[in-house]
Amino acid sequence: MPKKILRVDMSKLEVKFEDFPSEYAALGGRGLTSTIVSKEVPPDCHPLGPNNKLVFAPGIVTGSAAPTSGRISVGGKSPLTGGIKEANAGTSFSQLLGRLRIAAIIIEGLKKDKDYYLLKVTNDGAELINANKWSGIGLYKAYEQLRKEFGEKVAISGTGIAGELLGAGSGVCFNDLEGLPSRYAGRGGLGAVMASKGLKFIVVDETGAPGVEIADQEIFRAGTKKLRDALMSHDVTKPGGALASYGTDVLINIINEAQGLPQRNFSAGQDDRSANVSGEKKAEEIKKRGGTRPHPCSPGCVIQCSEIWTKPGGKDPVGVLEYESVWSLGPNCSIYDLDDVGELNRACNDLGLDTIEAGDTIAVAMEGGLIEFGDAKGALKLMDEIRKKTATGRILANGTAFTGRAFGVTRVPVVKGQSMPAYDPRAIKGIGVTYATTPMGADHTAGYAIATEIMGVGGQADPRDPKKSELSRNLQLATAVVDSTGYCLFTAFAVLDIPEGLEGMVESVNGVLGANLTVDDIGKIGMQIIEIELEFNRKAGFTKKHDRLPEFLRKEPSPPSNEVFDVPDDELDKVFGA
Amino acid sequence: MPKKILRVDMSKLEVKFEDFPSEYAALGGRGLTSTIVSKEVPPDCHPLGPNNKLVFAPGIVTGSAAPTSGRISVGGKSPLTGGIKEANAGTSFSQLLGRLRIAAIIIEGLKKDKDYYLLKVTNDGAELINANKWSGIGLYKAYEQLRKEFGEKVAISGTGIAGELLGAGSGVCFNDLEGLPSRYAGRGGLGAVMASKGLKFIVVDETGAPGVEIADQEIFRAGTKKLRDALMSHDVTKPGGALASYGTDVLINIINEAQGLPQRNFSAGQDDRSANVSGEKKAEEIKKRGGTRPHPCSPGCVIQCSEIWTKPGGKDPVGVLEYESVWSLGPNCSIYDLDDVGELNRACNDLGLDTIEAGDTIAVAMEGGLIEFGDAKGALKLMDEIRKKTATGRILANGTAFTGRAFGVTRVPVVKGQSMPAYDPRAIKGIGVTYATTPMGADHTAGYAIATEIMGVGGQADPRDPKKSELSRNLQLATAVVDSTGYCLFTAFAVLDIPEGLEGMVESVNGVLGANLTVDDIGKIGMQIIEIELEFNRKAGFTKKHDRLPEFLRKEPSPPSNEVFDVPDDELDKVFGA
Repeated sequence: MPKKILRVDMSKLEVKFEDFPSEYAALGGRGLTSTIVSKEVPPDCHPLGPNNKLVFAPGIVTGSAAPTSGRISVGGKSPLTGGIKEANAGTSFSQLLGRLRIAAIIIEGLKKDKDYYLLKVTNDGAELINANKWSGIGLYKAYEQLRKEFGEKVAISGTGIAGELLGAGSGVCFNDLEGLPSRYAGRGGLGAVMASKGLKFIVVDETGAPGVEIADQEIFRAGTKKLRDALMSHDVTKPGGALASYGTDVLINIINEAQGLPQRNFSAGQDDRSANVSGEKKAEEIKKRGGTRPHPCSPGCVIQCSEIWTKPGGKDPVGVLEYESVWSLGPNCSIYDLDDVGELNRACNDLGLDTIEAGDTIAVAMEGGLIEFGDAKGALKLMDEIRKKTATGRILANGTAFTGRAFGVTRVPVVKGQSMPAYDPRAIKGIGVTYATTPMGADHTAGYAIATEIMGVGGQADPRDPKKSELSRNLQLATAVVDSTGYCLFTAFAVLDIPEGLEGMVESVNGVLGANLTVDDIGKIGMQIIEIELEFNRKAGFTKKHDRLPEFLRKEPSPPSNEVFDVPDDELDKVFGA
Repeated sequence: MPKKILRVDMSKLEVKFEDFPSEYAALGGRGLTSTIVSKEVPPDCHPLGPNNKLVFAPGIVTGSAAPTSGRISVGGKSPLTGGIKEANAGTSFSQLLGRLRIAAIIIEGLKKDKDYYLLKVTNDGAELINANKWSGIGLYKAYEQLRKEFGEKVAISGTGIAGELLGAGSGVCFNDLEGLPSRYAGRGGLGAVMASKGLKFIVVDETGAPGVEIADQEIFRAGTKKLRDALMSHDVTKPGGALASYGTDVLINIINEAQGLPQRNFSAGQDDRSANVSGEKKAEEIKKRGGTRPHPCSPGCVIQCSEIWTKPGGKDPVGVLEYESVWSLGPNCSIYDLDDVGELNRACNDLGLDTIEAGDTIAVAMEGGLIEFGDAKGALKLMDEIRKKTATGRILANGTAFTGRAFGVTRVPVVKGQSMPAYDPRAIKGIGVTYATTPMGADHTAGYAIATEIMGVGGQADPRDPKKSELSRNLQLATAVVDSTGYCLFTAFAVLDIPEGLEGMVESVNGVLGANLTVDDIGKIGMQIIEIELEFNRKAGFTKKHDRLPEFLRKEPSPPSNEVFDVPDDELDKVFGA
C-alpha cells in the first residue's frame, strides 16, 4: 500500500484519499506542508477565508523505529503573520499517521454552517462526524471525553476555544502520551484556520496500520543505530543529560545568566527570581509531587525532555512546562512561581492557545494597564475572558501585536506579527537574526543560534557579536531539513557535534525513501524548502523591510547588558541574499 | 515677516519658531507635510512611538482671498496603514495659520506624562497649557468650553476620546464656522498620533496676524478671478448647483443608481431605501427643521457644499452630514434614516472618529454578530463603548480591519488597513484603482475617478471598464497638487472642464509664491509629491502586492451588477510604474 493524501473539503463535508504524487515522494513534514501550501494556497487569500488550507504532515521517518522522530508539521497561511506557516509538535499523532501511510491531511474549503466536525481516520478510511458536543469546552475535558468515546489508544488533534474565536494566538493541539492536550503546533494561529473550516478535532486510530514502508531496511537500521548512539552519548541529549534531567527549562538559569532572559515585557534581561522557575527547581518539585520526569513526548524518544507537571500531591496533571512557556508566562510577566506558571500553562492548553503568544500577550496587557505585572491571579482571569469569549478575550486571543494596538502599547516584541520567544535579541544577537529573517515570524526554532552562542554546540560564537548571518542561515537550512525528516530538532544538539550521528540521520532517511542523499545535500535541500517559503511570503507582500526587529529593540538598551539590537540591516539581508 | 515653522517638542514641553527653509518655499499643504514627514520621520518607526511626528500645514494660498481654499493638511506616519498619511480638512483653522504666516506646525516627541496639553498659537508666539480639564469629554462640549475660554474667534484643532484610546480610527478634528467639531482630517488615525504626544488641542488666535504674503498681487487677483468665474459657472460648483443645493450627499441617489452604493457591509451595491438618506431628502429636511444649507465650511468658499444638520426644531446642531458619512453610517449599516445617521455622525464628531472608518467598522461589527444590521440604536450603543473606553470600545476605535479580526469577519473592505469609502469598486472600477494604488490606503479623494466615471467631469469613462490606470494616475497627480495649494478638491470639478479656471488656479499660486508655474507643470509636481510618499511607503515595507483590493471584492459578485473587481494586477501596477 503506497502513501496517500487524505483531502477533506469542509464546504461539502467530503473526504477522499488521493495518490501521493510522485514529485512529492522525497518530501515529508515541513518540506511537504510548505510545498502543498505553496502549490495550493493563493498567497493573497484571507487566512480565514475559503482559499486557505490547513495541511498536516508527519515527517519522513515518523512512525518508524527511528529514535526521537515523532514530529508532525502543520502548515497553512498564518492569520498571525499573513505569511506561510509551518508549526510542529512532538506527539504520537504523527506516528499513527505515518504508520497509516498518510503522508498528509489537507483540510480545505470553508465552514459549511455553524456546526463543528471531527475527522475520524482509521486504516479503513476517514469520515466526518458532528462534534458540537465537544466544542465550547476546554480541551482537557474534551480530550478525556474523546478518548472515552474513541478509545484510549487514539491520537487526537484539536483546536480550542481560542480557535473557535478565530484568534490568531490559537495553536493546533495534539495529545501527549497521557492523552493530555499539551503538545502544540502552537505558533502562527493555525488553530483559527482549523476552526474557520469547522474542523474541531482529528481522531486517528491506527488499528491494522501497515506501518512505515522502509525501502532499505539495512541502511535504515545502520543509520538509526548511528543516530541513537550519538543521542545516547552527547551531554545535552543522553540519558541523565541536561534535557533528560531538567527538560528544556534548564535554560532559565543559563539564559538569565547570559542577561538574555526577558523580564517584564522585554524591559530587562535578568532577574534573580528567575531561579524560582528554573528547570532545576521544577525537577525537584516534580519529584516531591509525584509527577514524572524524564518522560517522552512520543514513543521512541531517547532524549525524553518532557515531563508531567502536576499540582501538589500529583493532582491534575498539566503535561510539560517547556522553557518557552515557563518564561513567557513567568518572568516575562514578572511571575516567579511554578504553580502560577503551571496553572497559566494549563489554561493555555485548555483554551488552545500558543503559550509563547499568550505569555507575550499577557505581558503587553500588563504594560497596557489591564493588570499589574506579577499578578498571576489577574493573568488567570484574563485567560477566563477568552473562555467566556468577551471582547477582552477576543483581543487577547488575537495575540501580542493585536493586544498592543488595542491598549496603546508600543513595546511590542513581534516580528511579522508573531511574538518573540524567550531570548532577548539584544543580549544574544544571533537568535535575533533568526527572529528577523525566518519566513515564520519571530521563531527561535527556525534557526536556533542559542545552541552555538550559549551552549557551544556546533562551534562557539560570542552572543554579543552582531555578525551572525552565516550562523543563522546555516542553522535555518539544517532546521528546514530536520523539520522535514520528522526528527526532533533536539537531535541537532548531538548531530551538530557528532558527525556519525548526522550521517546516521541521513542514512535513516535514505533507508525509508530508497534515496542516496548525503550530508552535503542538507544545505541545498534546506534552501529549496526555505526558498518556497520565501517566495510565498514575497507574493503575500513581504520584503526585506519586514526582516527587521521592532524599533524598541533597536533603541532601548536592555539592562543589565545595556545592549541594543545592533545587527546592521545588511547583515540581516545577507542571510538569504538580496 | 517671512513664514515660520512652529516646532513643538512634547517630550520637553518646548515650543520654538524656526525659519521656513528656502528649499520648502514652494511647498504647502500635502506637498509640505509629506516632505517634512519624509525628511524627519523614520519609515520604520512605531506610529505611536517617540519618532513619529505630526505635521499641520495650510495650503499655499490658504488664508488669502483665493476662493474655496480653506484647506489644511495633516501628515505623519499612520497608525492605521503603517505608511505615510496626509489627511485634510476645510476649516478656518487653516486660514488663521496662513494669515499668521505659519507654514507648518510640527509636533514631535512622546507624551511626557499622563497630562494632556493645549497648544495656544497667537501672533505673539505659542505656549503649551495643561488641558486635562478638557480631556475625557466629548468634543462638542470641549470646543464650546474652549471657545468660552479663548474667545469665539479662535480656531481649534483637537483629538477626541478615540484618540485618547490611541485608536487607529481616530481623526484630527477642526472647527466649522459655528465652532462645532465637525470638520475632520479624519483618515488614517492621526488623532491617535496627536494624543500619543499628549497634545489634546491646538487653539489659534489670529489677532494682529499679518496675512498671507502675496508676491504679485496683480497676477494673484487675475488668477483668482478666473478661478472664481469658473467655480461660479460650472454646474457642479455654481451657486444653486448640485453641491450648493444638496451637498456631497447628492451622490446617494446617483451612486445607488450606478449600483455602486455599498449596502450591508459591501454585500450589495443598490437599495431603494437609500433615497431616504439622499441629499435631496436631507435638503428638504434641513429647510423644514431650520438648519442651514448651503453653507461654507470656511470663509471665502463660493461652492458652499456644507450645511448645518440639526435635530427637529433646529436643535442640537451636528454640522455637516457628508455623503461619505451618510453612506458609511447609513446604507452600509442598513440604516436608512437621516436622524439615525445624524446622531451617529454626532457621536463620531464628539468622540473624534473618522466617520468612514467608523461606519465601516460598525458594519463589520454587525456582520460579526455584535448587533443586527439596521440596528441604529445598537450602533449608538457601540459608540458609547468607545466613550466608556471598554474593551469593545478599544476594538471599535481601532477601525475596520482590527474589528474584523477581533470578530472573525473576512468580508473586510480595506486597503493597506484603511477602510473603503462610499463607492463599490466592483461597479465603478476606476475608483477601485485609486483605492488600490494611492499611498494613502483606500481613499476616494486621492484620485476621484467618480468625477469622470459617473459625473462626466474631465471627460467620460465607462464605470465598468477596467482600464483605468491612466485616469486614476492623472487624477492622483492633479490631486496631490490641489491638496498642496490649499484649494478644495471640489474646485477640480470646475477646472477639469474649464481650462481658464485651471490657469487661474495656477496663476493664483504664482501670485502668492512669485513663481512661474504653468498648467503643464501640474503632472510633474504631483508626481514629485507622490514619489516622496511612495518612497516612504517602500521603506516602511510596502510593495505592489499591497496595491490590491481584498480577496472578497475580487471573488464575490456584488448584486445587482454582479460585477467583481476585475482590474488586472498589471493595470494596477501601471498607475505608478513597475
